[in-house]
Amino acid sequence: MADFFAAHRETLDRALQAISARGYWSPYPEVPSGKLYGETAKADGEAAFKAALDSKFDLHQPSDGRWIGDEVSPYGFALGATYATASVDQLIEASEAARTDWAAAPVETRVGVALEVLQRLNARSFEIANAVMHTSGQAFLMAFQAGGAHAQDRGLEAVAYAYEELRKIPGAVLWEKPQGKNPPLQLDKTFRIVARGVALVIGCSTFPTWNSYPGFFASLVTGNSVIVKPHPAAILPLALTVRIARKVLSEAGFDPNTVLLAVDSADAPIAKTLALRPEVGVIDYTGGPAFGRWLEEQAGDKQLFTEQAGVNSVVIDSTDNFKGLCGNLAFSLSLYSGQMCTAPQCIFVPAEGIETDQGHKSFDEVCEGLSTALAKLLGDADRAAAVLGAIQNETTLQRVEESTDLGTVVHASARLEHPQFEGARMATPLLLKVEAAQSEAYGEERFGPIAFVVAVEDAAEGLSRAAALAKTKGAITAGVHSTDAAFLARAEEAFAAAGVSLSENLTGQILVNQSAAFSDYHVSGANPAGNACLTDAAFVAGRFRVVAVRRPHAA
Amino acid sequence: MADFFAAHRETLDRALQAISARGYWSPYPEVPSGKLYGETAKADGEAAFKAALDSKFDLHQPSDGRWIGDEVSPYGFALGATYATASVDQLIEASEAARTDWAAAPVETRVGVALEVLQRLNARSFEIANAVMHTSGQAFLMAFQAGGAHAQDRGLEAVAYAYEELRKIPGAVLWEKPQGKNPPLQLDKTFRIVARGVALVIGCSTFPTWNSYPGFFASLVTGNSVIVKPHPAAILPLALTVRIARKVLSEAGFDPNTVLLAVDSADAPIAKTLALRPEVGVIDYTGGPAFGRWLEEQAGDKQLFTEQAGVNSVVIDSTDNFKGLCGNLAFSLSLYSGQMCTAPQCIFVPAEGIETDQGHKSFDEVCEGLSTALAKLLGDADRAAAVLGAIQNETTLQRVEESTDLGTVVHASARLEHPQFEGARMATPLLLKVEAAQSEAYGEERFGPIAFVVAVEDAAEGLSRAAALAKTKGAITAGVHSTDAAFLARAEEAFAAAGVSLSENLTGQILVNQSAAFSDYHVSGANPAGNACLTDAAFVAGRFRVVAVRRPHAA
Repeated sequence: MADFFAAHRETLDRALQAISARGYWSPYPEVPSGKLYGETAKADGEAAFKAALDSKFDLHQPSDGRWIGDEVSPYGFALGATYATASVDQLIEASEAARTDWAAAPVETRVGVALEVLQRLNARSFEIANAVMHTSGQAFLMAFQAGGAHAQDRGLEAVAYAYEELRKIPGAVLWEKPQGKNPPLQLDKTFRIVARGVALVIGCSTFPTWNSYPGFFASLVTGNSVIVKPHPAAILPLALTVRIARKVLSEAGFDPNTVLLAVDSADAPIAKTLALRPEVGVIDYTGGPAFGRWLEEQAGDKQLFTEQAGVNSVVIDSTDNFKGLCGNLAFSLSLYSGQMCTAPQCIFVPAEGIETDQGHKSFDEVCEGLSTALAKLLGDADRAAAVLGAIQNETTLQRVEESTDLGTVVHASARLEHPQFEGARMATPLLLKVEAAQSEAYGEERFGPIAFVVAVEDAAEGLSRAAALAKTKGAITAGVHSTDAAFLARAEEAFAAAGVSLSENLTGQILVNQSAAFSDYHVSGANPAGNACLTDAAFVAGRFRVVAVRRPHAA
Repeated sequence: MADFFAAHRETLDRALQAISARGYWSPYPEVPSGKLYGETAKADGEAAFKAALDSKFDLHQPSDGRWIGDEVSPYGFALGATYATASVDQLIEASEAARTDWAAAPVETRVGVALEVLQRLNARSFEIANAVMHTSGQAFLMAFQAGGAHAQDRGLEAVAYAYEELRKIPGAVLWEKPQGKNPPLQLDKTFRIVARGVALVIGCSTFPTWNSYPGFFASLVTGNSVIVKPHPAAILPLALTVRIARKVLSEAGFDPNTVLLAVDSADAPIAKTLALRPEVGVIDYTGGPAFGRWLEEQAGDKQLFTEQAGVNSVVIDSTDNFKGLCGNLAFSLSLYSGQMCTAPQCIFVPAEGIETDQGHKSFDEVCEGLSTALAKLLGDADRAAAVLGAIQNETTLQRVEESTDLGTVVHASARLEHPQFEGARMATPLLLKVEAAQSEAYGEERFGPIAFVVAVEDAAEGLSRAAALAKTKGAITAGVHSTDAAFLARAEEAFAAAGVSLSENLTGQILVNQSAAFSDYHVSGANPAGNACLTDAAFVAGRFRVVAVRRPHAA
């Protein structure tokens, strides 16, 4: 049997350094280049993806014999892949049967398996990128990065955090308590890491891998068996992941059912039934707040980690780079058509306008600047396709259409034709202007390419409204533009108090939407947008427990 | 202002080593000796305690002007101390007002304050021991140790764990992402630790300090303001603690309301109202499972740490020291009259008896051995008083009386007179024998000096019943006696799977009840006896969050 831990030891050590230093680091190249991934990787990945279409994706799991699947690419075609279903009883039983051996394995063995899975996922990044693209609607490059390399980074980050916590637990110690002149009291103690049980990972449709890998790998490495329940619209990327994990587990001598895929349909969802099973000890969930709140109420003593939703804001006070501001924000609103939990929805601008390097800009001139930047960014069809990707589902598109009346249109959403994919669901962002009082319009999450320029009395009011929204509705990101150091300091205080990380004066290539593994703590866990952070010690430390055995020391 | 962090740096460093090594360590002497604590410490502590009787204990907190308090010593006299009450609104408002400055203080400042509080608590151990004794009913030596030095150990342990997690978070980093031949992308990032909000610590009547200090200090050091809500029957020990904390906070330049005492009465409890307040972000609870389950249901996204209750077992398979076994178990049943979350309730013994160094012992001979050992241990009035202490409340005493019919009496509970305190509520343990099928008798928690010898077909059945009880009802400790290494190994597996730490073949001075800070992980969090462990990384890591500020790097 290969020693996976030894093989990946160097990567692990670098990851452990990275989570401590939290500067830039990544072991998985984000550039879909033949030089890095092999000259045939692109063609191989595409071929593998095509082979999965219109066929049975067989994971050789326990099954009730039914095959389901109705994934439709947002680029306009049905995937036709089907997956074997299993009853919740079958899944839990198989997971329970598998987990004892897995939990009993040495920490290094489990970590080694996880690192090998990550490496094989990386090698299959082109195939996974195609699968992510044609389920989430992300453009290919983004799918390769966010769905491939960056998701793998997030997985590795979780493995590193988990290993850091696991290796803290000593194996065996001698406890020796002095008794003055008498011989000391002595106990031999051994400490054993016990897993929580079955871990459930509930995926979402927009970032099926990026949002699932942290919980998946953290639960796996800490000794839990894992059941992955993808969103019915984005099964394939996680089915590929599960297949690779099961293969590595088998090679390492473990029951492949240590990792299981649980497929369901929108009509007959099984997540609630799974979540309520007493064997389930850990739940990771990414998705809407209604189900998130239900999970919080039902979790009891299960460990629950959620990323839900929020209303992200940018506050504009002033800038020394108006063009850069508009271009950067236009990109933030357009990237993956705003279908990111990190995309801004509200842009607070003083009604009397702002000072800029181009002189005073009125509120309407700011709106115009943003609209012009959007038009410029998305004016070229190829670039538009590369930036916007496709709209994951019809509901989001309807939401765009229904939102037009929520304010005065600054930039209308337009349906676009994709240069390559006929029937792709594409739309440019809708930008509306509203008054500060219209919080019923801008103050609710409107997922998708919908944003508001909100006229406030001054930037301070914008700040206070943005922070209040973060605190009450949740927020994962915040942005501010100001040339005034004192205003920036106030913004830092206000957003910190609301539990949101803040990006200041982004006018270049970095977007407020971006979150880098090993450096950015994604989601604070300190407002309603989610109760957990990807990734910190709290994200991993509760996924296992310690029990000891103590006995009189054998002299 | 004194540099408390520098003053206690060495203690902290040793504590950090100790939580990693998990051998024996304690900085706070457990012996109530004048040589260690000062020749007048004993008299001073007693005098201070007496001065608190029949008087107003003024913490100079916000108050609604009422004074309440009806603590009664289990040794037979009313304390007569009263405490100013405050409305929940007043408490939350004061805590909220105090917490901003506290949360903004450097980590080292907060840690220094906590360490100074612990040192002053240690210096007041005699006073606190009297307060613990005359609220919980613990005998003086135990009150000095469990309520004083060991509780301080547990507090320090929590500070060390919290500091270990806090210092992981880097202050400022340069994130620099290579861009091939182009200049790297550069962001300056600063990371800020944000507290959860107001932390609520809900104390119990039997271990008012030991069970409260871990949560209290962990929440405080991580930047939360803390409201301490003692059990109405055991306010004084925590009132003394809060007074010391408020003094140190004031000296360090902080609002003393960073720590507040919330007093209530059994008739008009306020814990629920406090727990539901949105400002409360962390709750530590020790107490019964009914309120524990309610908290789990209501907690939502609050961090909740519980120690509830369970049914602890000892399984006897065989022994090479029958006398030691009986003596050790008799002590375990008697210590503090079984009013410990770690005391055994069920002793599983094969119906056909066991092999021992004294030859075969029938089931009844094992019962007799235990009864004899109890009689011997408690035959001397002074020793009985020192071991048993007093029964904390009348309900427990009634429970003893009402439990007599649950089985066949092996050792009857007797009321004792205390050699010093007239009217002390004292009772020796009730030991019953029952059949394995009578699980309705032994399989529910019967808090207090009530235990069962359960006849099982063989030790394996005992093990399986004990582990099942732990898994379904919760357990904090387990014991096993066997001369068979294979049986011990099976016991280790079974109790680990049930999330209980196991003590093997204890026949000397160490009791299954004892849990040493810096070494024993108290409560696993892996069965219904509690969701948290005192103390591990998971106990502290979620008490704070991280938010970042990132901005383009200033070249």
